[in-house]
Amino acid sequence: MKTTKRSTVKRVPKRGHYDQKTLYNVLDQNHICHVGIIHNDHPVVIPTLYGRFEDSLYLHGATVSRLMSELEKEIELSISIAKTKGLVLARSAFHHSLNYESVVIFGKGKLISEGPQKISALKSISDHIIPGRWEEVRQPTTKELKATKVISIPLDEASTKIRTGGPVDDKADYDLEIWAGEVPIIEHYGTPIADPKLSSKIQYLPNSVKKLLNS
Amino acid sequence: MKTTKRSTVKRVPKRGHYDQKTLYNVLDQNHICHVGIIHNDHPVVIPTLYGRFEDSLYLHGATVSRLMSELEKEIELSISIAKTKGLVLARSAFHHSLNYESVVIFGKGKLISEGPQKISALKSISDHIIPGRWEEVRQPTTKELKATKVISIPLDEASTKIRTGGPVDDKADYDLEIWAGEVPIIEHYGTPIADPKLSSKIQYLPNSVKKLLNS
Repeated sequence: MKTTKRSTVKRVPKRGHYDQKTLYNVLDQNHICHVGIIHNDHPVVIPTLYGRFEDSLYLHGATVSRLMSELEKEIELSISIAKTKGLVLARSAFHHSLNYESVVIFGKGKLISEGPQKISALKSISDHIIPGRWEEVRQPTTKELKATKVISIPLDEASTKIRTGGPVDDKADYDLEIWAGEVPIIEHYGTPIADPKLSSKIQYLPNSVKKLLNS
Repeated sequence: MKTTKRSTVKRVPKRGHYDQKTLYNVLDQNHICHVGIIHNDHPVVIPTLYGRFEDSLYLHGATVSRLMSELEKEIELSISIAKTKGLVLARSAFHHSLNYESVVIFGKGKLISEGPQKISALKSISDHIIPGRWEEVRQPTTKELKATKVISIPLDEASTKIRTGGPVDDKADYDLEIWAGEVPIIEHYGTPIADPKLSSKIQYLPNSVKKLLNS
């Protein structure tokens, strides 16, 4: 992974990471990325679902989507992904913070052409969200594949930024009688809600969902 | 709120909302926004904490921050915010989806000048993250205020996009013996972790945290 000027964390540099393991770990825990492009000379940022497989990020969308049509021109893009992991409460207003994990990516997308590589890329997105689901469902038809565009983005110019732990207060403030600490934010899967139209023959959750709930 | 071409939801227009109540509701449930600008002719998207008060979004950062220095030039920006609320599992790979709430904002930021309005804006950010906390803590010093820039962004060109509910499958697929439904994603606050350096005189959680945990 190359570290360029624009992909180097400027504020609080010690929170910056440039290794693949840290990057992939944050990417694999999230579903939505925020894709920034220049459109009609203006910045536009659009949230969209993504998947990761090896060293590529995959986006998909309707063939008629404005974002997909722009990305397939291989224009410059920037992608941001972040998750809040906790509130950090300090003794001073100034030192309050968030614990978070974030990624910023720079690069250009590339349209994946029709054929087995497109199906693999779509499977990567599916596997990213819920491993094993792809094998359980009705596969895409030719018509469905034509209605979808898939863009791959190389993960070679990216940085991860992570804050963990409690507050860091000014020395004098530790004597104040003010509570300080961290309030974690926890995300979990809830009880699955079966489609009301589900056939009564289907009494059990699929393996993909069972594994997700146990992960 | 004005609805411009760029702030109109193009894909699945029925999921688009343009009223303040829906917009504020999504904004008030999130902490991190993704700010896109054009920098050196390239798109750059940076995640950062925000607050909302009335019809303005507030961002803050170190006076030396690159993002703040750009935003105070009142350049065009686009902001994206999104939360995944659930996985939507259909009978076909094609109809899988996410339930989500997202916001896209366009506009220009404005630097808030020194004085009471800057303190109010910082309080708005604090209140957005954890109401009542501002009154419990040591207030900013003149030096701390000088080290921080605050940018306000009018919420007058924005759209909210929301997907809820279960999968929508093709008619023929309802006969397949494949489980379909929704797996909710739930976020909650965990047990507060007191700063190890907390004075032993402080035995109770502050009111702001108690209220947050009960909200």
